[in-house]
Amino acid sequence: MKKNILVIPGDGIGQEVTIWGKKVLEKIGQKYGHEFSFDEAIMGHVAIEATGNPLPDETLEKAKSSDAILFGAIGHAKYDNDPSAKVRPEQGLLKIRKELGLYANLRPILLFDELLDASSLKPEVLKGTDILFFRELTGDVYFGEKNRSEDNNFASDLMNYNRYEVERIAHKAFEAARTRSKKLCSVDKANVLETSRLWREVVQEIAKQYPDVETEHMFIDNAAMQLVKNPKKFDVVLTANLFGDILTDEASQIAGSMGMLASASIGDGTGFFEPIHGSAHDIAGQNKANPLASILSAALMLDISFGLQTEAKEVTEAVAAALKAGWRTGDIANANTPADKILGTQEMGAQVLE
Amino acid sequence: MKKNILVIPGDGIGQEVTIWGKKVLEKIGQKYGHEFSFDEAIMGHVAIEATGNPLPDETLEKAKSSDAILFGAIGHAKYDNDPSAKVRPEQGLLKIRKELGLYANLRPILLFDELLDASSLKPEVLKGTDILFFRELTGDVYFGEKNRSEDNNFASDLMNYNRYEVERIAHKAFEAARTRSKKLCSVDKANVLETSRLWREVVQEIAKQYPDVETEHMFIDNAAMQLVKNPKKFDVVLTANLFGDILTDEASQIAGSMGMLASASIGDGTGFFEPIHGSAHDIAGQNKANPLASILSAALMLDISFGLQTEAKEVTEAVAAALKAGWRTGDIANANTPADKILGTQEMGAQVLE
Ligand SMILES: CC(C)[C@H](C(=O)O)[C@@H](O)C(=O)O
Ligand SMILES: CC(C)[C@H](C(=O)O)[C@@H](O)C(=O)O
Repeated sequence: MKKNILVIPGDGIGQEVTIWGKKVLEKIGQKYGHEFSFDEAIMGHVAIEATGNPLPDETLEKAKSSDAILFGAIGHAKYDNDPSAKVRPEQGLLKIRKELGLYANLRPILLFDELLDASSLKPEVLKGTDILFFRELTGDVYFGEKNRSEDNNFASDLMNYNRYEVERIAHKAFEAARTRSKKLCSVDKANVLETSRLWREVVQEIAKQYPDVETEHMFIDNAAMQLVKNPKKFDVVLTANLFGDILTDEASQIAGSMGMLASASIGDGTGFFEPIHGSAHDIAGQNKANPLASILSAALMLDISFGLQTEAKEVTEAVAAALKAGWRTGDIANANTPADKILGTQEMGAQVLE
Repeated sequence: MKKNILVIPGDGIGQEVTIWGKKVLEKIGQKYGHEFSFDEAIMGHVAIEATGNPLPDETLEKAKSSDAILFGAIGHAKYDNDPSAKVRPEQGLLKIRKELGLYANLRPILLFDELLDASSLKPEVLKGTDILFFRELTGDVYFGEKNRSEDNNFASDLMNYNRYEVERIAHKAFEAARTRSKKLCSVDKANVLETSRLWREVVQEIAKQYPDVETEHMFIDNAAMQLVKNPKKFDVVLTANLFGDILTDEASQIAGSMGMLASASIGDGTGFFEPIHGSAHDIAGQNKANPLASILSAALMLDISFGLQTEAKEVTEAVAAALKAGWRTGDIANANTPADKILGTQEMGAQVLE
C-alpha cells in the first residue's frame, strides 16, 4: 500500500508527541511493506508566528492532497487571556475541520486494564467500560454567526443545525453501533433548545432504519452526570459539537488521563487523526507529555483511513504491552508507581516502538 | 419574623419530596417563634393538565407576592419523546425564572462525610471538596431567539449575553468568594464563542475590584474534566446558564447523589429554592425519592432569603445526624448498607424532622 501522510505537530506538546505517532507509522510501514511517505506542515500559534495565519494556504493544500493527516495540538495561553485577540490558533483547527468536511469526530474511550487505578473513579465503576463517541464537528454554535455590538455590551453566537448535518453523522453512529453492542445514546437538550428538538426528531427518524439498534435519548445534564455515576451503561454516544466537546473531555477521566485518548475526524475526504488533549504549554518542552494518545491516533489512522486492521491492532497491543510492563508517564502514574517506571515522552515512545 | 412562603411541588417526585421541605419549615417556625404561612400553587405538567398553561397567571401572581418559594421539580417523559410538542412543562420553570428576575442560581456541592462512600469517585479524591456554583439563570442560549424553518430542515437558538447580565452575577460570585477561601474559577469557552469572550472580558474587569480573590479562567471542556479528576481544586465556580446546567449535574456525583443537592435562585426579588434533581417519573409515587434535597433547599431559604443562619444550621445538622445514624434512601445507599437502614421518602423525612 502507498500512502501520503501529512504530519502537523501544531503547538505546545504537539511538537513532542506527534513525532512518536509518526515513528510508529514509519515502523509499521517498514514491517508490513507499505510505502508511507511523510510531509510536514504548520498550523496554530506556530503558524501565526511564522505567517500571521493560523491555517496557511500551503498547509490547507497539502492537507487536501494527502491521504491522511496526523495532527498534534493547538492553542497558546497568550490568546486565552486576551479575549479580544482577533487572530487565534483555534481558528486554524476549526477552519481545517470545515474545509476538509470532517463532520464526524470519533472518540473511543478505550480503557486499558492496567490503568484502572489511574482514574479518580473507582475501579469497580470503570471496569468493562467501552464507549465510542460520535461528536458532530462542523456545525453547532461553533460555526454559527458571531456578533459583538459596537459598544461591546452585547455578544452572541448562533447555535444551529441543518437536517442533513444531523442525518449524516447519525448514520455513521448507527452503523458503528451495529458492529458493536447495538446500543446508541443520543445526547441533546431538547427540553430547552430548538436545535436539540430538530436533532432528536432526526435521530428518531433515522433510528427507524436501524431497528436492531436500541436507541436512547438523554439530556446533556443527565448524561454528564451518568458518565461519572455509571459509565458502563454507555456504548455508542452520538452528540452535537459543543456537547461532544464537553462530554469527551469529561470521559477522558475514565481512561485515566487525557494523555491516553485518540480521535479520528472523518467525513467527505481525507481523515484527520489527533489526540484529544490540548497543547499543554505548562509542560511543553520538558519531555513530560504522554505520547500514547498520538500513537493511538496513528493506530486509528491505520484502521479507519487505510483499512489496515492488523497493523492497527499491533500498535494498540504495543501500547498495552508497555503499560503491562509497568511503564508510565507522569499523568498515568499513581502513588504506587515505582519512580524508575516513570518515563519521559521519548522513553515511553521508544518503549512502544520496541 | 413573619413570612409568606409559596410551595410549588410541581411534577413527579416533586409532589413527594416538597412536603418534607415544608414540614421542616413549619417545625422551625414553631420552635423559633416565626410566623411562616404557606400557600400552594401549580406549575409544569400538572399545570398543563389542569389549565393548559405550564405557568398559570395565578401561580405567577402568588409567586411575586410571596417572600420565598419552595419548588419541587418539573418535567414529564411524555414531552421528552415528542420534540414537536409546543407546550412543555419546562417553559413554566424558565418563565418563572425570567419573570422573577432570578439571575443567580447558587448550587452548593455540600459533601457529608457519611456519604464519602456513596460516590463513584474515590473517597480520597472527594474528601475536603466544598464547591459553590454560581450559574447564570436568565440569559444564554436558554432565552435567545429560537427558529425553525418552515420546511423543518433547519433549527437555531441564539446564544447571547449582555454585559450587565455578566456583571451582576459576577459581583455576587466574587462577594461569596470573599466570605470563603477567596478563590474563584470562571468557566467559559472563550477560545470558540464570542459570548464567552465577552463573559471573560467582563469577569476580568470585575476581578480587578476584588484583588483579594484569586481568579482563574477555565474552558468548559477542561472544567468538566477537572471536576472529575480533582474536585478539591474548585471553590467558587462562576459560569453561564448552559455550562452551569451541565457542570452542576456532573458535580452532583461528588455529593453521592442528585438527591442530596439543593439550590437557591436569587435576583431582583423573591428567592426560589429547589432541589437540583428532576421529576424522576420512573420512581414517582413509590415512596423512594430522597427528600433531603428539598429539606436542604428549605435550609437555604432560611439562610439566604430570611437571614436565619442559626435555623438553617439546625436543619443541615439534622440531615447530617440522620446520615450519621446510618439512615439512607436508596440513591445514597451502597452495597454495605444494611437493608433495615434503607428508608422510603416519608421515613427519611420523619427521621430528619425528629
Ligand atoms: C481547541 C478547541 C477549539 C477544540 C474544540 O473545542 O473543538 C478542542 O477542545 C477539541 O475538543 O478538539
Ligand atoms: C428542567 C430544565 C429546563 C432545567 C434547566 O436546564 O435549567 C433543569 O435541568 C435545571 O437544571 O434546573
